Amino acid sequence: MIKNTKVNAAILIIGNEILSGRTQDTNTRSIALWLNSIGVKVNEVRVIPDIEGTIIDTVNYLRKANDYVFTTGGIGPTHDDITAQSISRAFNLEYEIHKKAFKILEAYYKVGEFNEGRQKMVWMPRNSNLILNPTSGAPGFNVENVFCLPGVPSILKSMLGGLKNKIIGGKPILSQTISLRTVESEIAKALTDVQDSNKDVEIGSYPFFQAGKLGVSIVIRSEDQFKIDKCSSEILKFIVEKKIEIVDR
Amino acid sequence: MIKNTKVNAAILIIGNEILSGRTQDTNTRSIALWLNSIGVKVNEVRVIPDIEGTIIDTVNYLRKANDYVFTTGGIGPTHDDITAQSISRAFNLEYEIHKKAFKILEAYYKVGEFNEGRQKMVWMPRNSNLILNPTSGAPGFNVENVFCLPGVPSILKSMLGGLKNKIIGGKPILSQTISLRTVESEIAKALTDVQDSNKDVEIGSYPFFQAGKLGVSIVIRSEDQFKIDKCSSEILKFIVEKKIEIVDR
Repeated sequence: MIKNTKVNAAILIIGNEILSGRTQDTNTRSIALWLNSIGVKVNEVRVIPDIEGTIIDTVNYLRKANDYVFTTGGIGPTHDDITAQSISRAFNLEYEIHKKAFKILEAYYKVGEFNEGRQKMVWMPRNSNLILNPTSGAPGFNVENVFCLPGVPSILKSMLGGLKNKIIGGKPILSQTISLRTVESEIAKALTDVQDSNKDVEIGSYPFFQAGKLGVSIVIRSEDQFKIDKCSSEILKFIVEKKIEIVDR
Repeated sequence: MIKNTKVNAAILIIGNEILSGRTQDTNTRSIALWLNSIGVKVNEVRVIPDIEGTIIDTVNYLRKANDYVFTTGGIGPTHDDITAQSISRAFNLEYEIHKKAFKILEAYYKVGEFNEGRQKMVWMPRNSNLILNPTSGAPGFNVENVFCLPGVPSILKSMLGGLKNKIIGGKPILSQTISLRTVESEIAKALTDVQDSNKDVEIGSYPFFQAGKLGVSIVIRSEDQFKIDKCSSEILKFIVEKKIEIVDR
Protein backbone atom coordinates (compact mmCIF):
# COMPACT_ATOMS: atom_id res chain seq x y z
CA MET A 1 0.00 0.00 0.00
CA ILE A 2 1.27 3.47 -0.82
CA LYS A 3 0.27 6.68 0.93
CA ASN A 4 0.18 9.91 -1.00
CA THR A 5 1.49 12.01 1.86
CA LYS A 6 5.07 11.85 3.11
CA VAL A 7 5.78 9.09 5.59
CA ASN A 8 8.56 9.40 8.13
CA ALA A 9 10.25 7.34 10.81
CA ALA A 10 12.71 7.50 13.66
CA ILE A 11 15.30 4.86 14.48
CA LEU A 12 16.10 4.27 18.14
CA ILE A 13 19.29 2.34 18.86
CA ILE A 14 19.22 1.02 22.44
CA GLY A 15 22.57 -0.08 23.79
CA ASN A 16 25.47 0.97 26.00
CA GLU A 17 27.87 -0.86 23.64
CA ILE A 18 27.23 1.69 20.88
CA LEU A 19 27.61 4.69 23.23
CA SER A 20 30.90 3.36 24.62
CA GLY A 21 32.29 2.87 21.12
CA ARG A 22 32.81 -0.84 21.74
CA THR A 23 30.45 -1.74 18.89
CA GLN A 24 30.08 -0.04 15.51
CA ASP A 25 26.37 0.42 14.77
CA THR A 26 25.39 -0.74 11.30
CA ASN A 27 21.68 -1.23 11.95
CA THR A 28 20.88 2.43 11.26
CA ARG A 29 22.09 2.09 7.71
CA SER A 30 20.33 -1.25 7.11
CA ILE A 31 17.00 0.09 8.35
CA ALA A 32 17.39 3.45 6.57
CA LEU A 33 18.16 1.89 3.18
CA TRP A 34 15.23 -0.48 3.54
CA LEU A 35 12.85 2.30 4.61
CA ASN A 36 13.93 4.48 1.69
CA SER A 37 13.14 1.65 -0.70
CA ILE A 38 9.54 1.55 0.56
CA GLY A 39 9.04 5.33 0.63
CA VAL A 40 9.66 6.07 4.30
CA LYS A 41 12.05 8.89 5.16
CA VAL A 42 14.15 8.68 8.33
CA ASN A 43 13.73 11.95 10.23
CA GLU A 44 16.09 11.23 13.08
CA VAL A 45 18.15 8.59 14.81
CA ARG A 46 18.88 8.40 18.52
CA VAL A 47 21.24 6.17 20.42
CA ILE A 48 20.42 5.80 24.11
CA PRO A 49 21.66 3.68 27.02
CA ASP A 50 19.99 0.62 28.58
CA ILE A 51 18.13 2.73 31.15
CA GLU A 52 14.40 2.11 31.54
CA GLY A 53 13.36 5.72 32.17
CA THR A 54 15.34 6.94 29.18
CA ILE A 55 13.84 4.28 26.90
CA ILE A 56 10.29 5.08 28.05
CA ASP A 57 10.66 8.85 27.63
CA THR A 58 12.39 8.58 24.26
CA VAL A 59 9.92 6.08 22.81
CA ASN A 60 6.98 8.17 24.01
CA TYR A 61 8.42 11.25 22.35
CA LEU A 62 9.43 9.59 19.09
CA ARG A 63 6.22 7.63 18.55
CA LYS A 64 4.18 10.82 18.68
CA ALA A 65 6.58 12.80 16.47
CA ASN A 66 6.90 10.18 13.72
CA ASP A 67 4.72 7.84 11.66
CA TYR A 68 6.91 4.88 12.66
CA VAL A 69 9.59 4.09 15.22
CA PHE A 70 12.06 1.23 14.84
CA THR A 71 14.06 0.20 17.90
CA THR A 72 17.06 -2.12 17.87
CA GLY A 73 18.63 -3.96 20.76
CA GLY A 74 17.70 -5.06 24.25
CA ILE A 75 15.39 -7.98 23.44
CA GLY A 76 17.71 -10.87 24.33
CA PRO A 77 17.74 -13.11 27.41
CA THR A 78 20.12 -11.23 29.74
CA HIS A 79 19.60 -8.70 32.53
CA ASP A 80 20.60 -5.76 30.29
CA ASP A 81 17.83 -6.59 27.80
CA ILE A 82 15.08 -4.29 29.04
CA THR A 83 13.44 -3.05 25.84
CA ALA A 84 10.26 -5.18 26.11
CA GLN A 85 9.53 -4.18 29.70
CA SER A 86 10.29 -0.53 28.91
CA ILE A 87 7.96 -0.50 25.89
CA SER A 88 5.24 -2.08 28.05
CA ARG A 89 5.56 0.78 30.50
CA ALA A 90 5.73 3.39 27.72
CA PHE A 91 2.35 2.17 26.44
CA ASN A 92 1.01 1.37 29.92
CA LEU A 93 0.46 -2.26 28.94
CA GLU A 94 0.97 -5.45 30.96
CA TYR A 95 4.41 -7.04 30.53
CA GLU A 96 3.56 -10.73 30.22
CA ILE A 97 4.23 -14.02 28.48
CA HIS A 98 3.18 -13.84 24.83
CA LYS A 99 1.52 -17.19 24.19
CA LYS A 100 2.26 -17.35 20.46
CA ALA A 101 5.90 -16.37 20.98
CA PHE A 102 6.14 -19.03 23.70
CA LYS A 103 4.85 -21.70 21.28
CA ILE A 104 7.26 -20.54 18.56
CA LEU A 105 10.30 -20.86 20.83
CA GLU A 106 9.07 -24.07 22.44
CA ALA A 107 8.98 -25.57 18.94
CA TYR A 108 12.28 -23.93 17.92
CA TYR A 109 14.43 -25.35 20.74
CA LYS A 110 15.13 -29.00 21.46
CA VAL A 111 13.36 -30.55 24.45
CA GLY A 112 14.94 -29.22 27.65
CA GLU A 113 16.70 -26.30 25.94
CA PHE A 114 13.89 -23.78 26.33
CA ASN A 115 15.27 -22.69 29.69
CA GLU A 116 14.51 -19.75 31.98
CA GLY A 117 16.88 -17.40 30.12
CA ARG A 118 15.27 -18.11 26.78
CA GLN A 119 11.79 -17.87 28.25
CA LYS A 120 12.55 -14.24 29.14
CA MET A 121 12.45 -13.53 25.39
CA VAL A 122 8.71 -14.27 25.19
CA TRP A 123 7.80 -11.62 27.76
CA MET A 124 6.32 -8.72 25.82
CA PRO A 125 3.75 -5.93 26.05
CA ARG A 126 0.23 -7.43 26.10
CA ASN A 127 -1.22 -8.11 22.62
CA SER A 128 2.01 -7.30 20.78
CA ASN A 129 2.14 -8.29 17.13
CA LEU A 130 5.09 -10.60 16.52
CA ILE A 131 7.89 -9.88 14.05
CA LEU A 132 9.10 -13.28 12.91
CA ASN A 133 12.78 -14.16 13.12
CA PRO A 134 13.92 -16.63 10.45
CA THR A 135 17.50 -16.68 11.79
CA SER A 136 17.41 -17.45 15.49
CA GLY A 137 13.77 -18.03 16.45
CA ALA A 138 13.10 -15.32 19.03
CA PRO A 139 10.60 -12.90 17.50
CA GLY A 140 10.60 -9.12 17.72
CA PHE A 141 7.34 -7.34 18.43
CA ASN A 142 5.23 -4.40 17.40
CA VAL A 143 2.89 -2.18 19.43
CA GLU A 144 0.97 0.47 17.50
CA ASN A 145 3.59 2.32 15.40
CA VAL A 146 6.64 1.02 17.32
CA PHE A 147 8.59 -1.94 15.94
CA CYS A 148 11.18 -3.62 18.18
CA LEU A 149 14.02 -5.49 16.52
CA PRO A 150 17.12 -7.21 17.88
CA GLY A 151 20.58 -5.65 17.94
CA VAL A 152 22.54 -8.39 16.14
CA PRO A 153 22.86 -7.01 12.58
CA SER A 154 22.53 -10.27 10.65
CA ILE A 155 19.39 -11.24 12.58
CA LEU A 156 17.89 -7.77 12.23
CA LYS A 157 18.44 -7.76 8.46
CA SER A 158 16.73 -11.13 8.10
CA MET A 159 13.62 -9.75 9.86
CA LEU A 160 13.12 -6.58 7.80
CA GLY A 161 11.63 -8.37 4.78
CA GLY A 162 8.82 -9.75 6.94
CA LEU A 163 7.85 -6.24 8.01
CA LYS A 164 7.05 -4.94 4.55
CA ASN A 165 3.30 -5.51 4.68
CA LYS A 166 3.06 -3.84 8.10
CA ILE A 167 4.51 -0.53 6.93
CA ILE A 168 2.56 1.81 4.69
CA GLY A 169 5.13 3.83 2.77
CA GLY A 170 4.79 6.95 0.68
CA LYS A 171 6.17 7.41 -2.80
CA PRO A 172 9.64 5.89 -2.98
CA ILE A 173 12.39 8.46 -2.53
CA LEU A 174 14.36 8.55 -5.77
CA SER A 175 17.94 9.68 -6.05
CA GLN A 176 20.60 10.36 -8.63
CA THR A 177 24.31 10.63 -7.92
CA ILE A 178 26.80 12.49 -10.10
CA SER A 179 30.42 11.91 -9.12
CA LEU A 180 33.01 14.43 -10.24
CA ARG A 181 36.76 14.83 -10.29
CA THR A 182 36.75 18.17 -8.49
CA VAL A 183 36.71 19.70 -5.02
CA GLU A 184 33.61 21.11 -3.33
CA SER A 185 34.81 24.71 -3.39
CA GLU A 186 34.97 24.63 -7.24
CA ILE A 187 31.27 23.88 -7.56
CA ALA A 188 29.89 25.39 -4.36
CA LYS A 189 28.49 28.58 -5.89
CA ALA A 190 26.99 26.99 -9.01
CA LEU A 191 25.43 24.24 -6.90
CA THR A 192 23.91 26.80 -4.54
CA ASP A 193 22.24 28.44 -7.54
CA VAL A 194 20.74 25.11 -8.62
CA GLN A 195 19.51 24.43 -5.07
CA ASP A 196 18.01 27.93 -4.85
CA SER A 197 16.00 27.44 -8.02
CA ASN A 198 14.88 23.92 -6.97
CA LYS A 199 13.96 24.40 -3.35
CA ASP A 200 11.89 21.24 -2.89
CA VAL A 201 14.66 18.94 -4.10
CA GLU A 202 17.33 17.76 -1.65
CA ILE A 203 20.80 18.32 -3.11
CA GLY A 204 23.77 17.04 -1.11
CA SER A 205 27.47 17.39 -1.81
CA TYR A 206 29.90 14.79 -0.43
CA PRO A 207 33.67 14.81 -0.88
CA PHE A 208 35.35 11.42 -1.37
CA PHE A 209 38.79 9.90 -1.79
CA GLN A 210 39.06 7.09 -4.33
CA ALA A 211 42.22 5.44 -5.60
CA GLY A 212 44.21 8.30 -4.10
CA LYS A 213 42.21 10.99 -5.88
CA LEU A 214 39.80 13.60 -4.53
CA GLY A 215 36.29 13.83 -5.84
CA VAL A 216 32.81 15.06 -5.00
CA SER A 217 29.52 13.19 -5.26
CA ILE A 218 26.43 15.29 -5.81
CA VAL A 219 23.31 13.48 -4.65
CA ILE A 220 19.88 14.69 -5.84
CA ARG A 221 16.87 13.30 -3.93
CA SER A 222 13.14 13.73 -4.50
CA GLU A 223 10.00 11.64 -4.91
CA ASP A 224 9.58 13.19 -8.36
CA GLN A 225 11.79 11.91 -11.19
CA PHE A 226 10.97 14.97 -13.29
CA LYS A 227 12.39 17.29 -10.63
CA ILE A 228 15.53 15.16 -10.32
CA ASP A 229 16.00 15.28 -14.09
CA LYS A 230 15.60 19.08 -14.12
CA CYS A 231 18.24 19.51 -11.39
CA SER A 232 20.51 17.00 -13.02
CA SER A 233 20.50 18.85 -16.35
CA GLU A 234 21.17 22.18 -14.63
CA ILE A 235 24.10 20.62 -12.80
CA LEU A 236 25.47 18.97 -15.95
CA LYS A 237 25.30 22.37 -17.66
CA PHE A 238 27.71 24.02 -15.20
CA ILE A 239 29.91 20.92 -15.10
CA VAL A 240 30.43 21.17 -18.85
CA GLU A 241 31.03 24.93 -18.64
CA LYS A 242 33.64 24.40 -15.93
CA LYS A 243 35.22 21.50 -17.87
CA ILE A 244 34.98 19.20 -14.84
CA GLU A 245 35.51 15.47 -15.44
CA ILE A 246 32.54 13.23 -14.63
CA VAL A 247 33.72 10.08 -12.84
CA ASP A 248 30.38 8.36 -12.59
CA ARG A 249 26.69 9.11 -12.97
CA MET B 1 42.90 18.03 34.29
CA ILE B 2 40.57 15.48 35.88
CA LYS B 3 37.22 16.21 37.47
CA ASN B 4 36.04 14.09 40.38
CA THR B 5 32.43 14.09 39.32
CA LYS B 6 31.12 12.22 36.30
CA VAL B 7 31.46 14.03 33.00
CA ASN B 8 29.12 13.31 30.11
CA ALA B 9 28.66 14.28 26.50
CA ALA B 10 26.27 14.04 23.57
CA ILE B 11 27.27 13.44 19.97
CA LEU B 12 25.23 15.14 17.26
CA ILE B 13 25.67 13.82 13.73
CA ILE B 14 24.37 16.37 11.22
CA GLY B 15 23.73 15.03 7.74
CA ASN B 16 21.04 13.79 5.38
CA GLU B 17 23.50 11.24 3.99
CA ILE B 18 23.49 9.28 7.25
CA LEU B 19 19.69 9.37 7.55
CA SER B 20 19.22 8.16 3.98
CA GLY B 21 21.60 5.26 4.56
CA ARG B 22 23.89 6.44 1.76
CA THR B 23 26.79 6.85 4.18
CA GLN B 24 27.75 4.61 7.10
CA ASP B 25 28.51 6.80 10.13
CA THR B 26 31.77 5.89 11.84
CA ASN B 27 32.35 9.21 13.61
CA THR B 28 30.20 8.22 16.59
CA ARG B 29 32.53 5.35 17.39
CA SER B 30 35.71 7.41 16.89
CA ILE B 31 34.49 10.18 19.19
CA ALA B 32 33.05 7.77 21.77
CA LEU B 33 36.27 5.74 22.07
CA TRP B 34 38.32 8.91 22.41
CA LEU B 35 35.96 10.40 25.02
CA ASN B 36 36.02 7.19 27.03
CA SER B 37 39.79 7.33 27.12
CA ILE B 38 39.66 10.77 28.73
CA GLY B 39 36.90 9.94 31.20
CA VAL B 40 33.89 11.37 29.40
CA LYS B 41 30.82 9.17 29.06
CA VAL B 42 28.58 9.51 26.01
CA ASN B 43 24.98 9.84 27.22
CA GLU B 44 23.29 9.97 23.85
CA VAL B 45 23.80 10.29 20.13
CA ARG B 46 21.43 11.94 17.69
CA VAL B 47 21.48 12.01 13.91
CA ILE B 48 19.52 14.88 12.38
CA PRO B 49 19.02 16.33 8.89
CA ASP B 50 20.58 19.48 7.41
CA ILE B 51 17.67 21.67 8.55
CA GLU B 52 18.52 24.88 10.39
CA GLY B 53 15.60 24.85 12.84
CA THR B 54 16.27 21.24 13.78
CA ILE B 55 19.97 21.91 14.34
CA ILE B 56 19.25 24.96 16.51
CA ASP B 57 16.65 23.21 18.67
CA THR B 58 18.71 20.05 19.09
CA VAL B 59 21.94 21.88 19.96
CA ASN B 60 20.11 24.09 22.45
CA TYR B 61 18.62 21.04 24.14
CA LEU B 62 21.79 18.94 24.17
CA ARG B 63 24.15 21.67 25.37
CA LYS B 64 22.03 22.22 28.46
CA ALA B 65 21.56 18.50 29.18
CA ASN B 66 25.24 17.53 28.82
CA ASP B 67 28.68 18.73 29.91
CA TYR B 68 29.87 18.65 26.29
CA VAL B 69 28.36 18.39 22.82
CA PHE B 70 30.31 17.26 19.76
CA THR B 71 28.78 17.87 16.35
CA THR B 72 30.00 16.37 13.09
CA GLY B 73 29.26 17.48 9.55
CA GLY B 74 28.01 20.55 7.78
CA ILE B 75 31.10 22.76 7.98
CA GLY B 76 32.30 22.48 4.38
CA PRO B 77 31.98 24.99 1.50
CA THR B 78 28.68 23.95 -0.09
CA HIS B 79 25.06 25.12 0.32
CA ASP B 80 24.14 22.10 2.47
CA ASP B 81 26.83 23.01 5.03
CA ILE B 82 24.79 25.03 7.51
CA THR B 83 26.21 23.99 10.88
CA ALA B 84 28.16 27.21 11.57
CA GLN B 85 25.24 29.52 10.83
CA SER B 86 22.89 27.30 12.83
CA ILE B 87 25.20 27.27 15.86
CA SER B 88 25.45 31.07 15.61
CA ARG B 89 21.69 31.31 15.84
CA ALA B 90 21.51 28.71 18.63
CA PHE B 91 23.81 30.91 20.73
CA ASN B 92 22.40 34.18 19.40
CA LEU B 93 25.84 35.22 18.14
CA GLU B 94 26.85 37.05 14.97
CA TYR B 95 27.72 34.75 12.04
CA GLU B 96 30.80 36.42 10.61
CA ILE B 97 34.26 36.00 9.16
CA HIS B 98 36.65 34.60 11.75
CA LYS B 99 39.88 36.56 11.22
CA LYS B 100 42.26 33.93 12.51
CA ALA B 101 40.57 31.19 10.48
CA PHE B 102 40.77 33.45 7.41
CA LYS B 103 44.52 33.86 7.92
CA ILE B 104 45.02 30.13 8.39
CA LEU B 105 43.27 29.27 5.12
CA GLU B 106 44.85 32.17 3.23
CA ALA B 107 48.23 30.70 4.20
CA TYR B 108 47.09 27.12 3.53
CA TYR B 109 45.99 27.61 -0.09
CA LYS B 110 48.14 28.69 -3.01
CA VAL B 111 47.67 32.24 -4.27
CA GLY B 112 44.35 32.50 -6.12
CA GLU B 113 42.96 29.23 -4.72
CA PHE B 114 41.30 30.74 -1.64
CA ASN B 115 38.09 31.28 -3.59
CA GLU B 116 34.56 32.22 -2.54
CA GLY B 117 33.58 28.61 -1.79
CA ARG B 118 36.54 28.11 0.51
CA GLN B 119 36.00 31.48 2.18
CA LYS B 120 32.59 30.22 3.33
CA MET B 121 34.49 27.90 5.69
CA VAL B 122 35.82 30.84 7.77
CA TRP B 123 32.33 32.12 8.60
CA MET B 124 31.66 31.16 12.20
CA PRO B 125 29.88 32.28 15.35
CA ARG B 126 31.57 35.43 16.73
CA ASN B 127 34.55 34.73 19.01
CA SER B 128 34.59 30.99 18.32
CA ASN B 129 37.64 29.10 19.49
CA LEU B 130 39.26 27.30 16.58
CA ILE B 131 39.84 23.56 16.44
CA LEU B 132 42.89 23.09 14.26
CA ASN B 133 42.80 20.76 11.28
CA PRO B 134 46.17 19.17 10.44
CA THR B 135 44.74 17.29 7.44
CA SER B 136 42.95 19.75 5.19
CA GLY B 137 43.37 23.20 6.70
CA ALA B 138 39.81 24.33 7.42
CA PRO B 139 39.40 24.50 11.21
CA GLY B 140 36.45 23.40 13.28
CA PHE B 141 35.21 25.66 16.04
CA ASN B 142 34.04 25.67 19.61
CA VAL B 143 31.48 27.87 21.39
CA GLU B 144 31.06 27.32 25.13
CA ASN B 145 30.60 23.55 25.55
CA VAL B 146 29.80 22.81 21.89
CA PHE B 147 32.57 21.52 19.61
CA CYS B 148 31.94 21.44 15.86
CA LEU B 149 33.91 18.97 13.78
CA PRO B 150 33.81 18.00 10.10
CA GLY B 151 32.01 14.94 8.74
CA VAL B 152 34.87 13.33 6.81
CA PRO B 153 36.07 10.57 9.18
CA SER B 154 39.82 10.78 8.48
CA ILE B 155 39.83 14.56 8.98
CA LEU B 156 37.71 14.34 12.12
CA LYS B 157 40.03 11.75 13.66
CA SER B 158 43.08 13.91 13.00
CA MET B 159 41.46 16.79 14.92
CA LEU B 160 40.50 14.93 18.11
CA GLY B 161 44.02 14.90 19.54
CA GLY B 162 44.16 18.71 19.47
CA LEU B 163 41.00 18.89 21.59
CA LYS B 164 42.39 17.06 24.57
CA ASN B 165 43.36 20.12 26.60
CA LYS B 166 39.97 21.73 26.01
CA ILE B 167 38.00 18.89 27.58
CA ILE B 168 38.04 18.28 31.32
CA GLY B 169 37.31 14.60 31.79
CA GLY B 170 36.41 12.61 34.87
CA LYS B 171 38.08 9.41 35.98
CA PRO B 172 38.73 7.23 32.94
CA ILE B 173 36.04 4.60 32.43
CA LEU B 174 37.72 1.22 32.83
CA SER B 175 36.45 -1.98 31.32
CA GLN B 176 37.15 -5.68 31.28
CA THR B 177 35.85 -8.13 28.70
CA ILE B 178 35.43 -11.86 29.27
CA SER B 179 34.59 -13.79 26.10
CA LEU B 180 32.99 -17.20 26.48
CA ARG B 181 32.08 -20.16 24.30
CA THR B 182 28.44 -20.21 25.36
CA VAL B 183 25.06 -18.67 24.56
CA GLU B 184 23.45 -15.85 26.53
CA SER B 185 20.61 -17.97 27.88
CA GLU B 186 23.12 -20.28 29.64
CA ILE B 187 24.53 -17.47 31.75
CA ALA B 188 21.59 -15.07 31.93
CA LYS B 189 20.45 -15.96 35.45
CA ALA B 190 23.91 -16.12 37.04
CA LEU B 191 24.86 -12.84 35.38
CA THR B 192 21.69 -11.18 36.67
CA ASP B 193 22.68 -12.21 40.21
CA VAL B 194 26.13 -10.63 39.76
CA GLN B 195 24.56 -7.43 38.40
CA ASP B 196 22.06 -7.33 41.29
CA SER B 197 24.82 -7.52 43.87
CA ASN B 198 26.97 -4.91 42.03
CA LYS B 199 24.43 -2.27 41.10
CA ASP B 200 26.85 0.57 40.36
CA VAL B 201 28.86 -1.45 37.83
CA GLU B 202 27.70 -1.63 34.20
CA ILE B 203 27.62 -5.25 33.03
CA GLY B 204 26.76 -5.89 29.39
CA SER B 205 26.31 -9.16 27.56
CA TYR B 206 26.94 -9.31 23.80
CA PRO B 207 26.56 -12.39 21.60
CA PHE B 208 29.10 -12.82 18.79
CA PHE B 209 29.91 -15.13 15.89
CA GLN B 210 33.59 -15.87 15.37
CA ALA B 211 35.08 -18.42 13.01
CA GLY B 212 31.64 -19.97 12.64
CA LYS B 213 31.14 -20.41 16.37
CA LEU B 214 28.75 -18.69 18.77
CA GLY B 215 30.03 -16.91 21.82
CA VAL B 216 29.19 -14.23 24.36
CA SER B 217 31.31 -11.31 25.50
CA ILE B 218 30.64 -10.02 28.98
CA VAL B 219 31.78 -6.41 29.37
CA ILE B 220 32.24 -4.95 32.86
CA ARG B 221 32.56 -1.14 33.05
CA SER B 222 33.26 1.16 35.98
CA GLU B 223 35.63 3.95 37.00
CA ASP B 224 36.76 1.75 39.89
CA GLN B 225 39.15 -1.12 39.12
CA PHE B 226 38.38 -2.72 42.49
CA LYS B 227 34.69 -3.00 41.59
CA ILE B 228 35.53 -4.45 38.19
CA ASP B 229 37.78 -7.04 39.82
CA LYS B 230 35.07 -7.99 42.31
CA CYS B 231 32.52 -8.52 39.51
CA SER B 232 35.04 -10.34 37.40
CA SER B 233 35.81 -12.86 40.13
CA GLU B 234 32.11 -13.46 40.78
CA ILE B 235 31.59 -14.07 37.07
CA LEU B 236 34.59 -16.38 36.80
CA LYS B 237 33.21 -18.35 39.74
CA PHE B 238 29.99 -19.26 37.93
CA ILE B 239 31.84 -19.84 34.66
CA VAL B 240 33.99 -22.47 36.35
CA GLU B 241 30.96 -24.03 38.04
CA LYS B 242 29.15 -24.24 34.69
CA LYS B 243 32.29 -25.59 32.97
CA ILE B 244 32.08 -22.91 30.27
CA GLU B 245 35.14 -22.43 28.05
CA ILE B 246 36.80 -19.01 28.25
CA VAL B 247 37.80 -17.82 24.76
CA ASP B 248 39.49 -14.61 25.79
CA ARG B 249 39.83 -12.35 28.80
